[in-house]
Amino acid sequence: MPLCTCTDAGSITVAEDPACTRPGAAQLVPIDTEPVVGETPIAALRSWLTPTPLFYVRNHYSVPKIDPADWSLSISGAVSNPTEIPYSDLLRLPKKTLPAMLECAGNNRSDLEPGVPGNPFEDGAVSNAIWAGAPLKPFLQQAGFTPDAVEVLFEGADRGEPAPGRPVVPYQRSLPLQVALHPDTLLVYEMNGETLTPDHGFPVRLIVPRWYGMASVKWLTSIRVLQKSFVGFFQTERYVMEDEAGIDQQISWMAVKSFVNWPEHGTSLPVGRPVAVSGMAWSGAGPVRRVDVSLDGGETWQDAHLDESALGYSWQQWHVDWTPPAPGHYTIVARAADDSGNLQPLETRWNRLGYCVNGSKPVCVTAE
Amino acid sequence: MPLCTCTDAGSITVAEDPACTRPGAAQLVPIDTEPVVGETPIAALRSWLTPTPLFYVRNHYSVPKIDPADWSLSISGAVSNPTEIPYSDLLRLPKKTLPAMLECAGNNRSDLEPGVPGNPFEDGAVSNAIWAGAPLKPFLQQAGFTPDAVEVLFEGADRGEPAPGRPVVPYQRSLPLQVALHPDTLLVYEMNGETLTPDHGFPVRLIVPRWYGMASVKWLTSIRVLQKSFVGFFQTERYVMEDEAGIDQQISWMAVKSFVNWPEHGTSLPVGRPVAVSGMAWSGAGPVRRVDVSLDGGETWQDAHLDESALGYSWQQWHVDWTPPAPGHYTIVARAADDSGNLQPLETRWNRLGYCVNGSKPVCVTAE
Repeated sequence: MPLCTCTDAGSITVAEDPACTRPGAAQLVPIDTEPVVGETPIAALRSWLTPTPLFYVRNHYSVPKIDPADWSLSISGAVSNPTEIPYSDLLRLPKKTLPAMLECAGNNRSDLEPGVPGNPFEDGAVSNAIWAGAPLKPFLQQAGFTPDAVEVLFEGADRGEPAPGRPVVPYQRSLPLQVALHPDTLLVYEMNGETLTPDHGFPVRLIVPRWYGMASVKWLTSIRVLQKSFVGFFQTERYVMEDEAGIDQQISWMAVKSFVNWPEHGTSLPVGRPVAVSGMAWSGAGPVRRVDVSLDGGETWQDAHLDESALGYSWQQWHVDWTPPAPGHYTIVARAADDSGNLQPLETRWNRLGYCVNGSKPVCVTAE
Repeated sequence: MPLCTCTDAGSITVAEDPACTRPGAAQLVPIDTEPVVGETPIAALRSWLTPTPLFYVRNHYSVPKIDPADWSLSISGAVSNPTEIPYSDLLRLPKKTLPAMLECAGNNRSDLEPGVPGNPFEDGAVSNAIWAGAPLKPFLQQAGFTPDAVEVLFEGADRGEPAPGRPVVPYQRSLPLQVALHPDTLLVYEMNGETLTPDHGFPVRLIVPRWYGMASVKWLTSIRVLQKSFVGFFQTERYVMEDEAGIDQQISWMAVKSFVNWPEHGTSLPVGRPVAVSGMAWSGAGPVRRVDVSLDGGETWQDAHLDESALGYSWQQWHVDWTPPAPGHYTIVARAADDSGNLQPLETRWNRLGYCVNGSKPVCVTAE
């Protein structure tokens, strides 16, 4: 059974944070440096809240330096009243606070066989934070979009060649009008109770709950209402996945997924001592309804306890009480089901760019 | 009208964090250094989540240094099975995550007239964090408390003279048995997604939601089940408040309270431009049902909008949309009501030790 084969051992990367002398401070597992790409270390995936320095980063271009005094957000395109919103105006408006997790569409890409190009993410391109900012909706309504508006294009201040030799463009992503108008689509200036950091989009980023992270545009400077669908590198060439007919489809909502975060892969447990087999689960399509857990590599399954931790758009903690009954090798597998009837697959559907990897990932432990 | 008199100007203290070179990092407003006592800066009171370095600290003795490998928690007293729980055992159990605010019973003490002894807290001895740990209840059940058990005494590893010349004792606080057995009374080892810091009780502290902070014993090392009510300095000599008959009563639940956190006291606002008058509200007795806001020093009142931010035992954000109509002086006042019928008083009942100061605190602004 493929589910019983665990090939990659778990690892914890804890290193000194160069910006801070606090001993033992953890930092991101580096994937790339320019642009900055880094994963949340496995140890931090056990916590419901991801501290800001450990929240995964997947930037597409260099981090732009922006003085908030010079920053403003333009709203233009198919609108009757184009506007410019200064930073100070954002802060004067009602502040909405939302827990929301983000997952990079390429998370767990390195689990695919055969391998695919792209950032070789393991398990940590997923995190959960408390965001605060102003809802976008009233600004779009005030700008007065025309009846033929279909999409809203968001541009960051970051720019570069999306692929070698291509013209330099800003990072650009569009959303369907109704998603842009969702009351929880936020112009965010605060993360985990502090001013947004440069790596996470200072001064202002978009947060689009339920969508893969690529939609939550950082260093947001321009919003354009469009009368037709946007075509762009990170909209129609990347962040796409062939459907069953072989046609590329844009990626949007996070697929239903869960993982085991305790015990760690490779751990040895004492026979006869209780342990809480635990993990996280989520789905962009709606609340998690159920997490099934197997302790025997998928032969038998039981319902996990869903903890009272599904706040806002956060992930959901779950656990199963277990006492290893005898010495031996145990393979733990979890699979989540959401409220809309989506079931996490046991095996990911391979795709050439390595997106939406949501197959159940076994965790192997021994009992002694 | 006393409500219209604003005597103390707002202030923001932002200083370099000596442990971290990150520019502009804020730190606590110091009240005392040995033991450490510090307030959350006013600017951070605008955020639902209080970052750990800005979470208020009210220690009673010096911070003890504890190696978690040497730490264990003893449960003794009126129990049939006294136990010792090592740190590693705590981590093996189901991990419960809870948002919970804490307020020091002495918060806003410096607003009292005539003045009283004690730490001169202004507005910032109140904060909100995400806590994680193991519920206490199963441990008490396993220890098998006797039928005549009435209270549970919690001791920290911190110790000293509670008052000059008194015998050296550990910090000690008791809880009624039914509060100790509440499923959300937690043995906490994690705060805001990171290992608890020394100032906040590393390796393990108690968190007692709804109660003033003195109940959430830090550096917890010993739990003793008692057959009669505990008598001790910080139980029956401090953290007590005379009732209307003049008899000292122990302090427990946080009184219903709210404050205005935006605009700041002393701000000048442009006439005719909308602003969200905002703040926080809470009550230890149950959810906040209503916040009434006055923009004219208590003459007229309106209902504030309660934001969707009352998660777990957190505080509740609220706001009122307002456009200053004409130049002049405006006095903003908020008062909260909870689900149990408690109404925040406009004026605090003065008490000699300065606890439970929950009167409405006006914020004065001008419009130009």
